[in-house]
Amino acid sequence: MYNFGIAIHGGAGTILKSKMTPEKERAYKDALSIALEAGYARLSSNGTALQAVEDAIEQLENSPLFNAGKGAVFNAVGQHEMDASIMDGKSLHAGAIAAVRNLKNPIKLAHKVLLHSDHVLLIGDGARQFASAFDIEFESDQYFHDELRYQQWQKIKGSENFQLDHAREDKKYLGTVGAVALDQHGNLAAGTSTGGMTNKKFGRVGDSPIIGAGNYANNNTCAISCTGSGEFLMRASTAYDISCRMEYKGLSLEDAAREAVMDRLTQIGGDGGIIGIDRQGNITMPFNCEGMYRASKNQQQTVIKIYKE
Amino acid sequence: MYNFGIAIHGGAGTILKSKMTPEKERAYKDALSIALEAGYARLSSNGTALQAVEDAIEQLENSPLFNAGKGAVFNAVGQHEMDASIMDGKSLHAGAIAAVRNLKNPIKLAHKVLLHSDHVLLIGDGARQFASAFDIEFESDQYFHDELRYQQWQKIKGSENFQLDHAREDKKYLGTVGAVALDQHGNLAAGTSTGGMTNKKFGRVGDSPIIGAGNYANNNTCAISCTGSGEFLMRASTAYDISCRMEYKGLSLEDAAREAVMDRLTQIGGDGGIIGIDRQGNITMPFNCEGMYRASKNQQQTVIKIYKE
Repeated sequence: MYNFGIAIHGGAGTILKSKMTPEKERAYKDALSIALEAGYARLSSNGTALQAVEDAIEQLENSPLFNAGKGAVFNAVGQHEMDASIMDGKSLHAGAIAAVRNLKNPIKLAHKVLLHSDHVLLIGDGARQFASAFDIEFESDQYFHDELRYQQWQKIKGSENFQLDHAREDKKYLGTVGAVALDQHGNLAAGTSTGGMTNKKFGRVGDSPIIGAGNYANNNTCAISCTGSGEFLMRASTAYDISCRMEYKGLSLEDAAREAVMDRLTQIGGDGGIIGIDRQGNITMPFNCEGMYRASKNQQQTVIKIYKE
Repeated sequence: MYNFGIAIHGGAGTILKSKMTPEKERAYKDALSIALEAGYARLSSNGTALQAVEDAIEQLENSPLFNAGKGAVFNAVGQHEMDASIMDGKSLHAGAIAAVRNLKNPIKLAHKVLLHSDHVLLIGDGARQFASAFDIEFESDQYFHDELRYQQWQKIKGSENFQLDHAREDKKYLGTVGAVALDQHGNLAAGTSTGGMTNKKFGRVGDSPIIGAGNYANNNTCAISCTGSGEFLMRASTAYDISCRMEYKGLSLEDAAREAVMDRLTQIGGDGGIIGIDRQGNITMPFNCEGMYRASKNQQQTVIKIYKE
């Protein structure tokens, strides 16, 4: 039996202990724990890595704390447009959706694309039309309304500014959620989901629904989910870059991820972090900014962290 | 001075000499030559690789023979939806657009995204809105009407079938155009443009606008443009895979491209090919199907080919 396990993230960026109250910290950790346990329970009961990834991300999407699903930010016209992707490390099949509105759980639609479509990426109204053949839940705009995020949007609405989720005193929290898992059969999977950037316009799509950029899984190497400044993660193909450094340079997951995030991504000016797991169940969660909401669990230990340590 | 040069493609797939008339063959070769010379002229007069790539692709987009720009196929509702991307190997900046209608030259809008946006990928109506700030030409539906492509669409309209450009007797021609160039200053660039798949629906987006999948450029390694079954190229991150095999395995461009196309892409069942150029001006144009419309030119030689040789 493989050393199964799961890692999740709820976004990275300027997350400072000095700005956090004990209550808020508790709320974030509780939300991470719920998602972590949902995914781990699936693995413990011999479920697939793919399903564990979906289960964990579903919980993160259902929390108002993270920029995905219910907590998705407002775009330039006050809507919530969501992106998500999921990849199966065994078959190398993938599914992704971008710029879809009113989806309760974007990760579930991405999973349907993986399972029931010859395509990898479906966008906008077309993806919504694809969803109609399946039991996919949509919610009213009211479901996604959050007063804090609404105020964030009001502050920059009508300006040329974009914000990666919300800026606190001009600091950035780069909102995305993700999960990676290794199941008892040795199969890897990765998933990523986001509401994008506050006040985004022009149909901007970031790294989260892009296979190789924000998400990648391959049983021969690793499963990776990224969070951070999406444009930089796209230009660096960060998720696949980690896999290539393992496959072609023979690096460990930890070394490959460190090079990709601390060297490559940092060199081009990108902020963010990744979670990764390999075939042996090794887990790594590096980031090059102040903090990353993150957690991991296997038979040996449970980790839930926010700041650098 | 660097050994500047350019390579272009007009798609790959089941292109059989037995199905081609001398007149058609001449028309394709003439169209490739016009694009090749446009890009090469830019390089000869000390222009940038980026501009040479745009110039060559503009000509391919203006030809009705290739599935991009004027020759774009019909989607499921009789529209022409286009995708394109361009990347600068010097800065690693990139611009891409997807699912934009009525664009005369999609590559020009992708280039505007690269130059004038903090974003990498803009889609649909949002990308169209972004275009309005620039001198970007739009054309009527009539401009894109082509009787042959219309008949291809009529054959499968209303069915669940998708075709990669057009099937001839159930054989596939996988339509995309692309260009890669090295300029006199040693800078690399890559561009890709497509009209997608005949009868496509659900907002399907393929590899062409995805940095790392259908397009990639990095002065440290190579510039790559792909064509073929887009979903497989996305799952294999083919363009970035070639760069990684050079950077991390120390392979030549030719060996890296051969491994990525003949081994990796073929193993997962994908059809297609790539054009690539490296910092030394070496050019490679491998494909794993019957043919690929392709051409290259540098100070030593001019090549224009269609079939396997």
